Amino acid sequence: MVAEHEIQIRVRYSETDAMGYLHHAHYFAYFEMGRTELLRSQGGNYRVMEEGGLFMVVIHLECKYRQPARYDDVLTLKTRIARVTPAKLEHEYRLYRDGDLLTEARSTLACVDANGIVQRIPDVFQGIV
Amino acid sequence: MVAEHEIQIRVRYSETDAMGYLHHAHYFAYFEMGRTELLRSQGGNYRVMEEGGLFMVVIHLECKYRQPARYDDVLTLKTRIARVTPAKLEHEYRLYRDGDLLTEARSTLACVDANGIVQRIPDVFQGIV
Amino acid sequence: MVAEHEIQIRVRYSETDAMGYLHHAHYFAYFEMGRTELLRSQGGNYRVMEEGGLFMVVIHLECKYRQPARYDDVLTLKTRIARVTPAKLEHEYRLYRDGDLLTEARSTLACVDANGIVQRIPDVFQGIV
Amino acid sequence: MVAEHEIQIRVRYSETDAMGYLHHAHYFAYFEMGRTELLRSQGGNYRVMEEGGLFMVVIHLECKYRQPARYDDVLTLKTRIARVTPAKLEHEYRLYRDGDLLTEARSTLACVDANGIVQRIPDVFQGIV
Repeated sequence: MVAEHEIQIRVRYSETDAMGYLHHAHYFAYFEMGRTELLRSQGGNYRVMEEGGLFMVVIHLECKYRQPARYDDVLTLKTRIARVTPAKLEHEYRLYRDGDLLTEARSTLACVDANGIVQRIPDVFQGIV
Repeated sequence: MVAEHEIQIRVRYSETDAMGYLHHAHYFAYFEMGRTELLRSQGGNYRVMEEGGLFMVVIHLECKYRQPARYDDVLTLKTRIARVTPAKLEHEYRLYRDGDLLTEARSTLACVDANGIVQRIPDVFQGIV
Repeated sequence: MVAEHEIQIRVRYSETDAMGYLHHAHYFAYFEMGRTELLRSQGGNYRVMEEGGLFMVVIHLECKYRQPARYDDVLTLKTRIARVTPAKLEHEYRLYRDGDLLTEARSTLACVDANGIVQRIPDVFQGIV
Repeated sequence: MVAEHEIQIRVRYSETDAMGYLHHAHYFAYFEMGRTELLRSQGGNYRVMEEGGLFMVVIHLECKYRQPARYDDVLTLKTRIARVTPAKLEHEYRLYRDGDLLTEARSTLACVDANGIVQRIPDVFQGIV
């Protein structure tokens, strides 16, 4: 059982905006990477899941931005599963730079098939809260 | 006084993902467009504001995804200011396709100067709630 | 026969970078929009094409950047088909701001099926050079 | 003297498109990462360069796509400087997956100051061709 998974991400120049900061929309790509790697650390593989016909779709996002990040910053993203129900999966994210908390976020995903019909969350997500 | 502003956005191919849908992070670029155009409809101009040294930074986002959008869909985004305080600005967004509500979101922005010091929200945002 | 098609694009804040300019990678999303709209002006529809199992994949790109674009600039993109062969489609792009040429580009696309096997370029692209 | 620098990049879900592949525009973000890391391996730092008032702007790009990449692929990017003149810097890129060459590209950058005036290419780029 892994309660939390951690990855390092270096901010790309292409992710900055005219304010000189990591644009607020790109954080969600980082959180998605956190989910992919948390799942991999559990022995799961999202690509294989999709090839098998199951898709995890984002149905709710919330993000609180405390401090900005800049080009070339090395950030630490901590991702954990906060809650699993038969139909929904909730993740929590905390993004740090040198120990300072920059951003906190939360997402809810639903599991659907290729037709968008809700499916049961796969077992790999169970028991890792 | 304009309570709400509406723009049309056609989903770009580059905004889709392997699931065939508009990727969830790109909605925030749309909402940012909604803010730019709502401000312009008030006689304001965000580019001029930044040139004058004031920046509106996103400090909180929340988004509920009800139905996906696809490549080439023409979407209608309705943006309104929900609340203005001396230091914060809250917008609400509803994104539609053919009258169906796809997504609802809410953001909070703070006004800062080039050093990140909080400033008073400019008057152009006042009185349009 | 339409030799050339023209669209207007306003630069989004999310497309800028820390230099304050439209990031060089985003031009290719604009050129893709140019192709979509040129095809639509011919009576074609790329989404319908893909639903029918044909995909136009980019196999070569070349772009010359003369002058930068900035947030909120309204740009004019002129797209034309330079050459059609049974297997390849070449487009040319010129991007302007207030009559000044900012960028020139050229792309080559191949037509493939869902398995990546090369297919004959559809007739809608013929005769419009 | 380092002739070539190599980095690993895992394709993000947010970088895929409806065709299921890494979208062609995102390769340029990868090449930019290759430049950043090649420079760092030389003892240079692009962020520090920008803070000192020098900017490397892309003035020409060319890319040949041989095979597509997919979500979760681990790619190897090899970046080298092909040519340095007082005013221009040319890089070459080759992107591989499991030893297969997917993409070849070439870029030309110019060095400018904050006003866009052309400057001499910094010495850190010299002697590493």
